[in-house]
Amino acid sequence: MSGRATVVGVGLIGGSIGLALRERGWHVSGVDSDEARLATALEMGVVDSAGWDPAAEVTFVATPVAHIADAVREALAASPSGLVTDVGSVKVPVVSGVDDPRFVGGHPMAGSEQDGLEGAAADMFVDTNWVLTPGDATDDASFARVRTTVASLGAEVVTLSPDRHDALVALVSHVPHLTAATLMGLAAARSEEHYAVLRLAAGGFRDMTRVAAGHPGIWPDICAENSHAIAEVLDDLIAALGVVRREVVDSDRDGLLDRLETARAARVSLPTGAPRPSELAEVRVPIPDRHGELAAIATLATELDVNIYDLEIAHSAEGDRGVVLLIVETGLVERLKGGLMAKGYRPTSGPLT
Amino acid sequence: MSGRATVVGVGLIGGSIGLALRERGWHVSGVDSDEARLATALEMGVVDSAGWDPAAEVTFVATPVAHIADAVREALAASPSGLVTDVGSVKVPVVSGVDDPRFVGGHPMAGSEQDGLEGAAADMFVDTNWVLTPGDATDDASFARVRTTVASLGAEVVTLSPDRHDALVALVSHVPHLTAATLMGLAAARSEEHYAVLRLAAGGFRDMTRVAAGHPGIWPDICAENSHAIAEVLDDLIAALGVVRREVVDSDRDGLLDRLETARAARVSLPTGAPRPSELAEVRVPIPDRHGELAAIATLATELDVNIYDLEIAHSAEGDRGVVLLIVETGLVERLKGGLMAKGYRPTSGPLT
Repeated sequence: MSGRATVVGVGLIGGSIGLALRERGWHVSGVDSDEARLATALEMGVVDSAGWDPAAEVTFVATPVAHIADAVREALAASPSGLVTDVGSVKVPVVSGVDDPRFVGGHPMAGSEQDGLEGAAADMFVDTNWVLTPGDATDDASFARVRTTVASLGAEVVTLSPDRHDALVALVSHVPHLTAATLMGLAAARSEEHYAVLRLAAGGFRDMTRVAAGHPGIWPDICAENSHAIAEVLDDLIAALGVVRREVVDSDRDGLLDRLETARAARVSLPTGAPRPSELAEVRVPIPDRHGELAAIATLATELDVNIYDLEIAHSAEGDRGVVLLIVETGLVERLKGGLMAKGYRPTSGPLT
Repeated sequence: MSGRATVVGVGLIGGSIGLALRERGWHVSGVDSDEARLATALEMGVVDSAGWDPAAEVTFVATPVAHIADAVREALAASPSGLVTDVGSVKVPVVSGVDDPRFVGGHPMAGSEQDGLEGAAADMFVDTNWVLTPGDATDDASFARVRTTVASLGAEVVTLSPDRHDALVALVSHVPHLTAATLMGLAAARSEEHYAVLRLAAGGFRDMTRVAAGHPGIWPDICAENSHAIAEVLDDLIAALGVVRREVVDSDRDGLLDRLETARAARVSLPTGAPRPSELAEVRVPIPDRHGELAAIATLATELDVNIYDLEIAHSAEGDRGVVLLIVETGLVERLKGGLMAKGYRPTSGPLT
């Protein structure tokens, strides 16, 4: 499983990847535009050595969002046979800017209040979701290898198309963050007039605005890169708040109760961490040995809310066909097969062998 | 300090008041429209006895918001010389509906995820803020006694006018709650189409929507009672989100960074729990023995962000004058005196005696 890797940008996420890989026996090389930070990373044992590693089998680009596409291209050139992935919060600009079979976009949904290298931890990704967004150019072998590497760090891999990813994170991350900051800003503005406002801010308000305490440095870039999806969600939110306002002014108790009940049911059933399977089974999907088939199947599984616990591609010794082996929860085998058959695949399934 | 009290409505807050008072030697009688719940409260030792206590010196009304004004009137009639306070989340409708010198509106800013009597705890109010909203009719002795009783339960008392209270809780509690539910609702609606949305909801989203997991039962009433203030804050929020949207679409990095920096600074300096004084001093304020003077001074102190750690009123043996003794942080004595002098008072100060 282990091998040689390069990490570009040794901050919170890049540093955690370095620690996690080294713990699993990888040799990790570090690259960073900040030489002092790179020196600290070496001292801390986050990386083994400094500089690009031409023998790197996987390079993780963990630079700020605006520099990712350039860094990915540089990484592809630096390790001519290696794979490259990134950890940026917005995927369309990166994936559409890099047209290479050896590149797989990614986004680990992990982090910590403590940003910077000091917050790095080898177990940062355990039981978190790590999104992969293979592009049209990504080849199956690259996707499978990056997927296995990322999963070995303890993360559940969720495969999505880049535009779907960007729309969903606008909804569950970017707009909530902007909304928290906006609420905090309103309270802060009012507090100049009435000191008491901040004294009255109890637990619920503190929870809601916690993310606004984070360093804002990365956000202007994220907003710029994902402006289209963010604007759409902001439109939805503004419209929904307008409806809430009408319900409040009209004392529409039923409407409000219904809205709050729906939100409560959804919040209570929000999955915690990555799910653990009760029992696993294997689904086998014969495929034409065609470019991007693996990524398409993994993306379809995500759409069907079927977690893939392991994924492998076996090529037949002769001919142009292969078989994708998907390890999924036994109870979800039929759902996955139904979805695959609807797309023209002929899956079979059986117990884990 | 202790005496006899009645608690009307033995749920989370009423039950906690019962436990806290009994721990301090009070005899507590309980009233509740739900007889089974009242029986449980007796079994749990939340109250000593069931039914109205004509000898109650203080009655706490902790019924749902819509029934408070009626329950307060009933409590005033049930204990002809006792004081009455309530714990409702909205104050103008209650205070304007009860015109009695023996009534002081109140709102402890405490609670727990676990609602109902099972969540009741004697230490519920320790280091929390308890707002009192004396009305025009409230007399000084009633206010001072209720204030002392509430403070004895471990809470810091914040005195505000009823309309100021309602405006501020709309901002730091009601609208944040509705916004959390709205964000959760948008994500839930989208998840019907794309299961993955809820899997991507990481820590920040979970924090932001936590309050939406609470039982919605009380909220339609709160929204109805405080509709005016809530609508105003919703207007501000919708307008502010519109500005954010424009900054996102225009890639206005400076505007976004400035907004997020301001929010961060405010969030980081949000006071945690009730402040503890370093050193205390006494401010003495001669007052004409006039109705409501004490409440006016306490409200002014809140506006000046000066915490009152203790408050007493001493009447002169002869004549129609008295002296209010305020215990405040030494470093804030001059600020309080300045504010009082601006209002025509002639305060003096000295070390705590």
